[in-house]
Amino acid sequence: MTATPFARPLRGIVPPMITPLRGRDELDAAGLERLIEHILAGGVSGLFILGTTGEGPSLGYRLRKDLIQRTCRQVGQRVPVLVGITDTAFAESVNVARWAADAGAHAVVAAPPYYLPEGQPELQEYLDHLLPEMPLPLFLYNMPALTKVSYELSTVRRAMDDPRIIGLKDSSGNMIYFHQAAGLLRHRPDWTLLIGPEEMLADAVFAGGHGGVNGGANAFPRLYVDLFHAAASGDLPRVRELHARVMRISDSLYHVGRHPSAIIKGIKCALSLLDVCDDFMAEPFHRFREPERERVRDFLKKIQGDHA
Amino acid sequence: MTATPFARPLRGIVPPMITPLRGRDELDAAGLERLIEHILAGGVSGLFILGTTGEGPSLGYRLRKDLIQRTCRQVGQRVPVLVGITDTAFAESVNVARWAADAGAHAVVAAPPYYLPEGQPELQEYLDHLLPEMPLPLFLYNMPALTKVSYELSTVRRAMDDPRIIGLKDSSGNMIYFHQAAGLLRHRPDWTLLIGPEEMLADAVFAGGHGGVNGGANAFPRLYVDLFHAAASGDLPRVRELHARVMRISDSLYHVGRHPSAIIKGIKCALSLLDVCDDFMAEPFHRFREPERERVRDFLKKIQGDHA
Amino acid sequence: MTATPFARPLRGIVPPMITPLRGRDELDAAGLERLIEHILAGGVSGLFILGTTGEGPSLGYRLRKDLIQRTCRQVGQRVPVLVGITDTAFAESVNVARWAADAGAHAVVAAPPYYLPEGQPELQEYLDHLLPEMPLPLFLYNMPALTKVSYELSTVRRAMDDPRIIGLKDSSGNMIYFHQAAGLLRHRPDWTLLIGPEEMLADAVFAGGHGGVNGGANAFPRLYVDLFHAAASGDLPRVRELHARVMRISDSLYHVGRHPSAIIKGIKCALSLLDVCDDFMAEPFHRFREPERERVRDFLKKIQGDHA
Amino acid sequence: MTATPFARPLRGIVPPMITPLRGRDELDAAGLERLIEHILAGGVSGLFILGTTGEGPSLGYRLRKDLIQRTCRQVGQRVPVLVGITDTAFAESVNVARWAADAGAHAVVAAPPYYLPEGQPELQEYLDHLLPEMPLPLFLYNMPALTKVSYELSTVRRAMDDPRIIGLKDSSGNMIYFHQAAGLLRHRPDWTLLIGPEEMLADAVFAGGHGGVNGGANAFPRLYVDLFHAAASGDLPRVRELHARVMRISDSLYHVGRHPSAIIKGIKCALSLLDVCDDFMAEPFHRFREPERERVRDFLKKIQGDHA
Repeated sequence: MTATPFARPLRGIVPPMITPLRGRDELDAAGLERLIEHILAGGVSGLFILGTTGEGPSLGYRLRKDLIQRTCRQVGQRVPVLVGITDTAFAESVNVARWAADAGAHAVVAAPPYYLPEGQPELQEYLDHLLPEMPLPLFLYNMPALTKVSYELSTVRRAMDDPRIIGLKDSSGNMIYFHQAAGLLRHRPDWTLLIGPEEMLADAVFAGGHGGVNGGANAFPRLYVDLFHAAASGDLPRVRELHARVMRISDSLYHVGRHPSAIIKGIKCALSLLDVCDDFMAEPFHRFREPERERVRDFLKKIQGDHA
Repeated sequence: MTATPFARPLRGIVPPMITPLRGRDELDAAGLERLIEHILAGGVSGLFILGTTGEGPSLGYRLRKDLIQRTCRQVGQRVPVLVGITDTAFAESVNVARWAADAGAHAVVAAPPYYLPEGQPELQEYLDHLLPEMPLPLFLYNMPALTKVSYELSTVRRAMDDPRIIGLKDSSGNMIYFHQAAGLLRHRPDWTLLIGPEEMLADAVFAGGHGGVNGGANAFPRLYVDLFHAAASGDLPRVRELHARVMRISDSLYHVGRHPSAIIKGIKCALSLLDVCDDFMAEPFHRFREPERERVRDFLKKIQGDHA
Repeated sequence: MTATPFARPLRGIVPPMITPLRGRDELDAAGLERLIEHILAGGVSGLFILGTTGEGPSLGYRLRKDLIQRTCRQVGQRVPVLVGITDTAFAESVNVARWAADAGAHAVVAAPPYYLPEGQPELQEYLDHLLPEMPLPLFLYNMPALTKVSYELSTVRRAMDDPRIIGLKDSSGNMIYFHQAAGLLRHRPDWTLLIGPEEMLADAVFAGGHGGVNGGANAFPRLYVDLFHAAASGDLPRVRELHARVMRISDSLYHVGRHPSAIIKGIKCALSLLDVCDDFMAEPFHRFREPERERVRDFLKKIQGDHA
Repeated sequence: MTATPFARPLRGIVPPMITPLRGRDELDAAGLERLIEHILAGGVSGLFILGTTGEGPSLGYRLRKDLIQRTCRQVGQRVPVLVGITDTAFAESVNVARWAADAGAHAVVAAPPYYLPEGQPELQEYLDHLLPEMPLPLFLYNMPALTKVSYELSTVRRAMDDPRIIGLKDSSGNMIYFHQAAGLLRHRPDWTLLIGPEEMLADAVFAGGHGGVNGGANAFPRLYVDLFHAAASGDLPRVRELHARVMRISDSLYHVGRHPSAIIKGIKCALSLLDVCDDFMAEPFHRFREPERERVRDFLKKIQGDHA
């Protein structure tokens, strides 16, 4: 099936969907259906699967394919589906991109190959080789804390000259970089610039970005959508109020565990407590045990009080 | 087919074999045969495929399987074959390990999953989950510059309590760590401790290590084997002479390019110039172009003069 | 002499003044007078000397003392003067603080001691020891790229319980950290939170911060003051316009050189071209040579066109 | 007074002396005398003061001057005294170097200025500026973990062309770098190459280095001197035995605390328990409290058992 074209730039919230799992190498298919409906009900503008929050690199390829197919079927043409194809192996990135196209997804998303670090000329050549193999338009995904390599601004600028590359998701947390990337938008009016960390969503919109790929939108999609609209319309008091809620989620839900995986664990745990889906984590990670789960339960009560 | 057990600790040189490629996703099968014979003729003690030098993470799974089968068939029981299973996806590591066992390989080798960094407790639990799925004994592979996470010494010590884990390859370049790891050998007399960087081979043997997994042994296996024996027998003058040759290779061959991939490119280029195999690199890397190739040619002449 | 108390939180632009030098270990005294008047004429709210932009750690103590005295005399009570006392040696930090108090400065500013990295408990104890020796209130200065150690949020929170610590200047560039620090302001209504990187000035004010310590305000103080006021009053179109000018300065002036010192060199070079003061740099750095100076001259023409 | 010239390269153990303190900004003068005699009695080849282990950057200048004078007076011409002048402020490095020359020290030692990181061209120019001001020959001190900047090998090679620079102390812990530095010795037969981490002392001597600047030699100077001689004479069994003792010290004494300061704290605590000198630490650090002190006491008993 072929995807309907989507308006560009893509504006709003495009949640990086967690991957509901029932056990090792096993999708929680019913949870996935509920999760998609839960997210879409919040008014999001797209769905990004197989990213960092989606534990993409931790999932076997059979499961990735299954996830792509089920997600695209369930979403239909309601919002664009973006599929992460980040991989260390070129051939596997191409395979996943083809499954995505076949399933009706709308775009693919690629961070730099993340084992042996590339120089920027190597990364540029990589894109040159990748693009002819891509059946869908491509978003760049800047995530240097995990990939060790950035899409430096000169590489982003060069990528803008290729119409098959349509946007950048920046998860660097570096606001200077984001402002500089925003400054490049004049070269490509159709280019989409999205921010990863939700604590920076309003900043990103004020800076000229088009929205956010924010993990917390798995659990509370409406909150992030509302914050996006408040920022896009320049309603500063409303931004302040909603941003404060986002910060309370970040300060609580994402700091229950000690390791970098804590954010994903916190979101999955919250979704499990909300009866949306299972919170099994792919190896090498493990869902929160009961004491942490108890803390998430408490946070959730407080957070939900916010929204009452 | 089942592999013959091998004497432990495994002593000597276990080259991290480069993967001869003819093009994207395509083995250089004839080159592979020549390369294996070229290496084995040097008197090595084993062969390690699908490691960093082997561009393991950059290769598609179909090709990895093909490489494992061809290598095991060609090597037979002449030396143990170790197969890298390092992956971000647990399911894929298990698949590769099974292919390795089915093909008659002798052991598997795993660095920490390298996308989202684990804490040490998470890494320990990962090993606990991995081991029951492993059809072959396991080597740990410490490569923090690329995986961001180390096997810290407390984790190594804990791993020694499990007889299914049989050794550690350390590519950290941190000599203090290596000495500390050597100090742990008293807990497991059969445990194998190997060094990655060839510049440190003699140091590692003096420190109580059992040998090296040295990239340069792809091109000059006899040199590294000789250096190992000189160090193991405490022949300091001979060590000095052979180590100086190793340093000349390192100073020249590995510094032609500017990016971290330069070492692999240098070795592959040398093997191509020696008519052993093709020097195609898997994406995102590219073989040396003519100017760099010319410099390797020059170095090769000088290096070979050494051995005349 | 004793400084007049200043209103807290301190709101607006507090430029991190560059230190005009005529040669090694030699102040450009006339340039210093012109620079101070140039900056104050822009409507700034304070002046911060001996910070990173001021090359504080590169200056000998005799010169630091001279600079403190001249600056305080020249500024008088027009705006508060903040003096950097960051040092690896406790005794020297105390000395500089005393010179500052004697000269009539209003506050001191300290980043963590930056040679051997401290743990957070050590950093907290350091503050406990430092405070009784301080004759002036203290600002924390978060600059992890240079000091290797952050004031983590738990340490900031603890510092807020001591009334002698009155604020935080954050130069981490990490917008998530800044939002989290802003969230702590509810514990101390008089606490001042300032942002270092000028690219983030408007974001910082929207986030609840009180202003900026922005290097570019040495050359163009009015621009940063205007941007601050636009952000503080929620005038988004005006913010957009002024922020774009700030980004043009950043994109041009700060990227002429290749090393981290390029920002300071760019600002000093611009001030020299504007006939404000000399652009000599303290070792180990060197002012721009003619080709770079030429590029700054060109940028300056374009930037000044902006303000015409 | 003028120092007697010393034989070059300088071979053997040159302990990086801890600085005995009785309190903040106060030398333990009697302890200093005992410590110097304790160290010299071990047969060391020199004494290095005001390095990292000496807490040089944490000490006020008055105290540094006092330490230099007392140390030079006490040592006399028995062994060369090397004085650390590492500083972020050029003028202060020059001052300390002059005090060293006036007091009769034999050489000075400089790591790269360590606040704002230099590029290598800037670092080379820094040396060009520093040398004419130096009244004594200069050792380079490579300590990238603390200074953020390395003396890269190209910079070392260039420094070798200046006869006023006479050696390199490498504390990087990077054995590949050390081998490469050793390879440069052919360009300067009088150049001294010393290793910092004591765990690598024997490796360094085998690699062609001339000895070690090893912190543990404060407490157990004879052990390190013996290990040096064993390595220098190629007595491998004796190296193995003595190296094992060094590793036991490292594994115990340096891992009592959790922060990077733990090594210095451990050495100072041991010297205090041996009744050599006080273990006060300069801010921002604090001597071990009783529980840690108890552990050091236990380790000391075991370690001394080794030597009985």
